[in-house]
Amino acid sequence: MASCVEIISIGNELLIGKTLNTNATWLAKEITSIGLSISRITVIGDDVKEIVTAVQDAVLRKPSCVITTGGLGPTFDDKTFEAIADATNSVPRVNEKALEMIEEKYAQYAKEMNQDKFELTPARIKMATIPEGAKPLPNPVGTAPAISIQNNGITIFALPGVPSEMKAIFEQSLAPFLRAVAGHLKFFAKSIDVSGIMESEIAPIIDQVMHDNPRIYIKSHPMGAEKKPRIELHLSTIAEELETAKKRVSKALRQLSKIIKAKDGRLQLKQ
Amino acid sequence: MASCVEIISIGNELLIGKTLNTNATWLAKEITSIGLSISRITVIGDDVKEIVTAVQDAVLRKPSCVITTGGLGPTFDDKTFEAIADATNSVPRVNEKALEMIEEKYAQYAKEMNQDKFELTPARIKMATIPEGAKPLPNPVGTAPAISIQNNGITIFALPGVPSEMKAIFEQSLAPFLRAVAGHLKFFAKSIDVSGIMESEIAPIIDQVMHDNPRIYIKSHPMGAEKKPRIELHLSTIAEELETAKKRVSKALRQLSKIIKAKDGRLQLKQ
Repeated sequence: MASCVEIISIGNELLIGKTLNTNATWLAKEITSIGLSISRITVIGDDVKEIVTAVQDAVLRKPSCVITTGGLGPTFDDKTFEAIADATNSVPRVNEKALEMIEEKYAQYAKEMNQDKFELTPARIKMATIPEGAKPLPNPVGTAPAISIQNNGITIFALPGVPSEMKAIFEQSLAPFLRAVAGHLKFFAKSIDVSGIMESEIAPIIDQVMHDNPRIYIKSHPMGAEKKPRIELHLSTIAEELETAKKRVSKALRQLSKIIKAKDGRLQLKQ
Repeated sequence: MASCVEIISIGNELLIGKTLNTNATWLAKEITSIGLSISRITVIGDDVKEIVTAVQDAVLRKPSCVITTGGLGPTFDDKTFEAIADATNSVPRVNEKALEMIEEKYAQYAKEMNQDKFELTPARIKMATIPEGAKPLPNPVGTAPAISIQNNGITIFALPGVPSEMKAIFEQSLAPFLRAVAGHLKFFAKSIDVSGIMESEIAPIIDQVMHDNPRIYIKSHPMGAEKKPRIELHLSTIAEELETAKKRVSKALRQLSKIIKAKDGRLQLKQ
């Protein structure tokens, strides 16, 4: 799949149900709005072997790029750089540029906190120990730099798990790359709420409208129950021009509304 | 891994960032509290090939069971039963017991809505078309039954994506199975908030406490930034008896508190 992206979310907190995976959802939304699609999100724990397998499997599926989040910090269970080195037949090495970035951060913290110089302890040097061949990406709001590395023609990005840092690095370093991959493609979507018709009755209507509008994708989200039905219908498309995408969605929406009203359903445009 | 569970979340809405994957987080929390661990969560779209691959790969990793959510409804893009049939070398067939469950639901809806009998349209029969050899599991709050099916010694459960239905079926049909797998194992966790110490300074402290308490797992979650540090430390363990687990966590917590206070850190027990 040429214009797909895979996300790998790393962290035990996600696997014990402590933390909602808001990072993956945020990334998925941003990347979709750029005009690319997410083909898979894999969530694994802080385990080198698990990360290696997940990264290698993702690269084999040939997406445009692989984005990992989590595991870049100074603690023992931050293992992403070590695992990506393993997965790409590289080795973890202290990177001069990454170390400089970290040194600058601690010099700045010391100044702001009116303290003596912070030493480069092993835990701090760990954050600059990245796979050989990887490029450190500046972290505008936190300490640990992110990285990008090439493997079998696929770019792997490793971002931190702290949401504010992840978002800032995405916007600064990943979004421009992804926009270039997407070219002119634009995603457009609209939702309507339908009530008074059961989801099982809407099913054949969706089939018909998607048949007549082959580039429109319609997904139904039941919000009530069959006997007290309220269903959100989400219409989306990807086109070269935003105007084309909007027109396509409007056309499908008109047909859908007509059929639903003819069946005594009520509908309301969302937002 | 003998007592691990894999979760597969199915639905395009998860891959375009429209819906947060609260189902996976809820399941992960419930299953962890039962004493089992989640080894992986895979999120894929409404695509038969993708679902087949994800299910087959999960079964090959030999977890105690695989749980899928989503894709059981009446619309064209509800493809989970078809895909699980493919993945397990079975075929989709109308299941008499599942059809009875669905007929009963619609008879009940008709009565409650004061309407004539609802016909078993193709969209409604679709919800009873499950892999041959699968067992339908009653849906206490919705229409589509869930299923369980054996494959290579692994039990696969397919639950609906609507959270209230997923939860009700989990509690009624899956929790007893998982409790039997877990045996007496109990999970216990406690969190403390630490401020005034950087995460990079806490890293070696965690190493020491985990070394001295080998059955305790400590995960740090930075909530502030390195220069204005606030870090949540999450201590957890799994034991045969809840009392043993609690004692273990308390012992590690005492050691941790002592070291943190000696370094002028402040700490607060959460909840």
